[in-house]
Amino acid sequence: MVKVGIVGGTGYTGVELLRLLAAHAEVEVVAITSRAECGRRVDDLFPNLRGHYDLAFSEPDVQLLAACDVVFFATPHNVAMNLVPELLAADARVIDLSADYRLRDAGLWSHWYGESHASPELLAEAVYGLPELNREKIAAARLVACPGCYPTSVELGFMPLLARGLIDPQHLIASSASGVSGAGRQAKIDNLLSEASDSFKAYGVGGHRHLPEIEQALSDIARDKVAVTFVPHLLPIVRGIHSTLFARLDDHSVDLQALYEEWYADELFVDVLPGGVFPQTRTVKGANRCQISIAVPQQRDTVVVMATIDNLVKGASGQAVQNMNIMLGLEEGAGLRQVGLLP
Amino acid sequence: MVKVGIVGGTGYTGVELLRLLAAHAEVEVVAITSRAECGRRVDDLFPNLRGHYDLAFSEPDVQLLAACDVVFFATPHNVAMNLVPELLAADARVIDLSADYRLRDAGLWSHWYGESHASPELLAEAVYGLPELNREKIAAARLVACPGCYPTSVELGFMPLLARGLIDPQHLIASSASGVSGAGRQAKIDNLLSEASDSFKAYGVGGHRHLPEIEQALSDIARDKVAVTFVPHLLPIVRGIHSTLFARLDDHSVDLQALYEEWYADELFVDVLPGGVFPQTRTVKGANRCQISIAVPQQRDTVVVMATIDNLVKGASGQAVQNMNIMLGLEEGAGLRQVGLLP
Amino acid sequence: MVKVGIVGGTGYTGVELLRLLAAHAEVEVVAITSRAECGRRVDDLFPNLRGHYDLAFSEPDVQLLAACDVVFFATPHNVAMNLVPELLAADARVIDLSADYRLRDAGLWSHWYGESHASPELLAEAVYGLPELNREKIAAARLVACPGCYPTSVELGFMPLLARGLIDPQHLIASSASGVSGAGRQAKIDNLLSEASDSFKAYGVGGHRHLPEIEQALSDIARDKVAVTFVPHLLPIVRGIHSTLFARLDDHSVDLQALYEEWYADELFVDVLPGGVFPQTRTVKGANRCQISIAVPQQRDTVVVMATIDNLVKGASGQAVQNMNIMLGLEEGAGLRQVGLLP
Amino acid sequence: MVKVGIVGGTGYTGVELLRLLAAHAEVEVVAITSRAECGRRVDDLFPNLRGHYDLAFSEPDVQLLAACDVVFFATPHNVAMNLVPELLAADARVIDLSADYRLRDAGLWSHWYGESHASPELLAEAVYGLPELNREKIAAARLVACPGCYPTSVELGFMPLLARGLIDPQHLIASSASGVSGAGRQAKIDNLLSEASDSFKAYGVGGHRHLPEIEQALSDIARDKVAVTFVPHLLPIVRGIHSTLFARLDDHSVDLQALYEEWYADELFVDVLPGGVFPQTRTVKGANRCQISIAVPQQRDTVVVMATIDNLVKGASGQAVQNMNIMLGLEEGAGLRQVGLLP
Repeated sequence: MVKVGIVGGTGYTGVELLRLLAAHAEVEVVAITSRAECGRRVDDLFPNLRGHYDLAFSEPDVQLLAACDVVFFATPHNVAMNLVPELLAADARVIDLSADYRLRDAGLWSHWYGESHASPELLAEAVYGLPELNREKIAAARLVACPGCYPTSVELGFMPLLARGLIDPQHLIASSASGVSGAGRQAKIDNLLSEASDSFKAYGVGGHRHLPEIEQALSDIARDKVAVTFVPHLLPIVRGIHSTLFARLDDHSVDLQALYEEWYADELFVDVLPGGVFPQTRTVKGANRCQISIAVPQQRDTVVVMATIDNLVKGASGQAVQNMNIMLGLEEGAGLRQVGLLP
Repeated sequence: MVKVGIVGGTGYTGVELLRLLAAHAEVEVVAITSRAECGRRVDDLFPNLRGHYDLAFSEPDVQLLAACDVVFFATPHNVAMNLVPELLAADARVIDLSADYRLRDAGLWSHWYGESHASPELLAEAVYGLPELNREKIAAARLVACPGCYPTSVELGFMPLLARGLIDPQHLIASSASGVSGAGRQAKIDNLLSEASDSFKAYGVGGHRHLPEIEQALSDIARDKVAVTFVPHLLPIVRGIHSTLFARLDDHSVDLQALYEEWYADELFVDVLPGGVFPQTRTVKGANRCQISIAVPQQRDTVVVMATIDNLVKGASGQAVQNMNIMLGLEEGAGLRQVGLLP
Repeated sequence: MVKVGIVGGTGYTGVELLRLLAAHAEVEVVAITSRAECGRRVDDLFPNLRGHYDLAFSEPDVQLLAACDVVFFATPHNVAMNLVPELLAADARVIDLSADYRLRDAGLWSHWYGESHASPELLAEAVYGLPELNREKIAAARLVACPGCYPTSVELGFMPLLARGLIDPQHLIASSASGVSGAGRQAKIDNLLSEASDSFKAYGVGGHRHLPEIEQALSDIARDKVAVTFVPHLLPIVRGIHSTLFARLDDHSVDLQALYEEWYADELFVDVLPGGVFPQTRTVKGANRCQISIAVPQQRDTVVVMATIDNLVKGASGQAVQNMNIMLGLEEGAGLRQVGLLP
Repeated sequence: MVKVGIVGGTGYTGVELLRLLAAHAEVEVVAITSRAECGRRVDDLFPNLRGHYDLAFSEPDVQLLAACDVVFFATPHNVAMNLVPELLAADARVIDLSADYRLRDAGLWSHWYGESHASPELLAEAVYGLPELNREKIAAARLVACPGCYPTSVELGFMPLLARGLIDPQHLIASSASGVSGAGRQAKIDNLLSEASDSFKAYGVGGHRHLPEIEQALSDIARDKVAVTFVPHLLPIVRGIHSTLFARLDDHSVDLQALYEEWYADELFVDVLPGGVFPQTRTVKGANRCQISIAVPQQRDTVVVMATIDNLVKGASGQAVQNMNIMLGLEEGAGLRQVGLLP
């Protein structure tokens, strides 16, 4: 059995890791930490876990965590970057769901997160954990930085077009929408049901922290500098991201439906829908899956790609488990075959 | 492998059976019928199933169904009662999710459903499929009538109190609330998002079809005639039933929390919450589980029981799979260990 | 023009007062206070008010408030009871939307609110502001305590039955459900969209602060001591309360539909629905209205009353404006004729 | 008093007209037609109207309608174009909320609506009822074609940029999202709460009927041919449209915030938000208002405009009443000063 530790288990990515790992036959969660809830049973905070775990939150203890085969960080940014060096030194392997190791440029990270990076020396080593892009590097990594939720949908959506050089990389547009769970389990007035339900709005239009991550990954894919106009919106639902992507098509000769189907043919968790069928967030709810459609409205020169994920699964905890499977040489889909909950 | 057939696969209990059976290692779905969608791939109608089934809807064919080990009816009432006799004659075992075989009294059935029963001779044989009440009979049954969604929550909620004779059985009150999926996948104006969301209402106050079923089962439990005032309400959510039950307490000497915990101690799918913790529909969403709390406000003589289920799982398809496991001697929890989706 | 001051304008009852008063031709809001938002424009916090008010939040200033004809307290409990004595001394009339003056018994208030009352000498003078019960006293009052949201629905629902002595007053049951806005505009994890949406639960079963208020008012109506089992539930919507009331019917000879229609025939804001039609929260959304239905299921001896209000209107700010109209001799419906927003 | 007739009163734009006209002091609704609900009281179908109207649905009768000063068509397309000629001949003035007279080109109309136009001779005369574009023509019109809901938001959003020639008109992008009420009060499985809630999806990507209307109006504004990539999405809410618009900025020298504020300075119902504040659908819910923001992310060359409306008010019935006020020389805001319902 693989011994797993989770740092920061009181948020939504924490409980989602526990949900998914409960279905993973080769894994045992041996520690889950929380300073605030130390001593409280996990299933007292999250009653959906009753009967599935006999576990209480504990203080983050490096000794204990270092004894795990894998440590997940399900924390806000600015936690992992302080603890990871010590864990790596103790030979643990780390999967960070936070933003701490996603950007390779420490200066850029500081610019967007408003503080210095605590372990910039690890940025070059950290592998960006998008399996469809970096599977081999992930397999060999000590430290994997799981992509953000929006970036996962935008990068999988643009990947074939950009990799094949079919679109103008300088004027990409991503109009994305996320459920509120993306904002985490924090007491903020803006995320109250009374504020966020029954409404829709854009936010972070001037600059969202996922923008530099998206541009870094898309530049890797395009092997060229890209520029993205990224407008995130808040959906009045709990789970789900839908990205609607627009780009200027430079080459009209390619059968885009076939390109996408072939590109992702061997991917377990990317599902290209048949032509004319568009993805819905509800059909991937609870599932580790990205569903994608592509269209060229009116056969003009703007291509539209739609990509949906569950932000807590393929956009966070599911992708983290997928990365763990790859790192440990387990079957990539282990623990990740839940069917989406519909309706 | 157990060969399973499903009659009427285009509704919500149909797709939910498929979701659950996809996780059941000992089962293979060999036929799923629908006249209206005959020939259409199942995952075209329900894209959450893509990659999980390679199956199309077919015409209901008695030969084909009779070759199955178990046939589920996931149909509206008035379908099973016409087909089941032939299937039983061909030695199939049947699990009916509809109302056709829930009432033992054909006259009562006709009164509530407005037509004659097509196979009244089977009513005495059909076993009411509430495992917590009838486990042994279910194991031996050829024909199991799965309880309705509301009844499941009301019966599990009242069972220990009634069986122990602690409350006045003549004045039971059930104030229940259900998500809209309970109304099925039918095009009705009342169930449009624009009509049913952002609202709450009672309905069927004058008499809901689940009332005679509830009174029959509670009378079995009480070994006495009971009378229930049952008021169902429509919740602006997809899944979930919450029943708030009220009764006059005749005997104050019993520790009700301990009674409930002991009563359900060996039940896999009934979870009595700790004292002072009340159930939420969201913590059982997607799970085959009933969570129950009991309280006596102000230590007066009215007892309050709260019981939650997912109407499509413990209230329908999950309970059906649980019945199948019991009938076939499989482990009772096989395929039913999904953790509820929270948040 | 009536000069109005509002203490505590940053909550939902505050913005709702502003919405309603914007439609009131005889009123001018001259001050709205908030320590936290002092100096900020009201329409910056609540963009729905842009173009309707040219007003900023100010520090609570007794001089300024005392110069108003009426001062509304749209504050949590424990604010009004400290400021009201001074305002009354300065000849202002006060309408308190909080719980501070609802209970006549200071000891009972302390028991439920966990602190001493700061101005118990005013409890006897304060008039309970349910116009359908106390219209004449309200007209003469200096200090009106607006009823709580749940109590408004429960009291209007039980009133004719209790006043006429038709039911057992010792075993009343109120199973109520409220939208989340009832919990106010406060940053609490429990009220996040990710926690409260897509779910339903009971809470406060052991004892909710509205219970003593309900029992006090119902006892006034019954001219007898009553006992209520009150179970509130949280609805995954913003606005709306639905109370489902149960009582043992002592007298079967009365035509209850006719009784209710006659009882409320002259009430502008209580609407008894036709027999067999049940109220929905959505048909009173945004309106100062209580819609009521009554039924006796199966012609047994349990009567069921259903009553709906918008908790922020008839359950709070609308009722407050109605009280103001009565106190000032204005037409009772002035500013309160908004049609409910449907769909 | 202006005598108003409404053809097709059982849909959402019908009940919304009634809600708004109830607050309009100079208007009396004398007829509201519906073949299906003929004879039924309006407030029986829409209980929010109880106490506001004493009116029943009647058969559509040209005599009766022709006696009205203004007739609204709140019908699906293909109704108005058959009745309007007769009404105009009888000297009624007509405001059509449907799509029948929005396109000037009968061939284009036939292409998108799949049938011939029944009164193409009126297409040239019909005035496109966007007051911010055509106020003077509306004042003089016999027949006004109210804009579609999506088009209203897209056209008001792009208008200043296009009229001033600041953006590339050949590559406009509109990523819009609408609440489900835009699909009308029709029994369709896709619009059930169980299907449409808790989800988000694009639809009509290949070509939505609002596309030619948008391109016609934007071409009028630009005095040049425009091309738009229009992707509508379905929001899991009842009311509200949010359009996120993208364009390539040709001229960087203009202060866009100032441009928008000046452009709409005299418009009652277009509200340009302060810089850095983005619109939400909830702040215009129930109000006849379009709230707009403009931004240039990262100071690059893609401009983003966000525009919100309530699809049933500024996107339909409110705009229709605004047109009526203009046509009849009434104050433009009469009956339209409702404050948006927030929260």
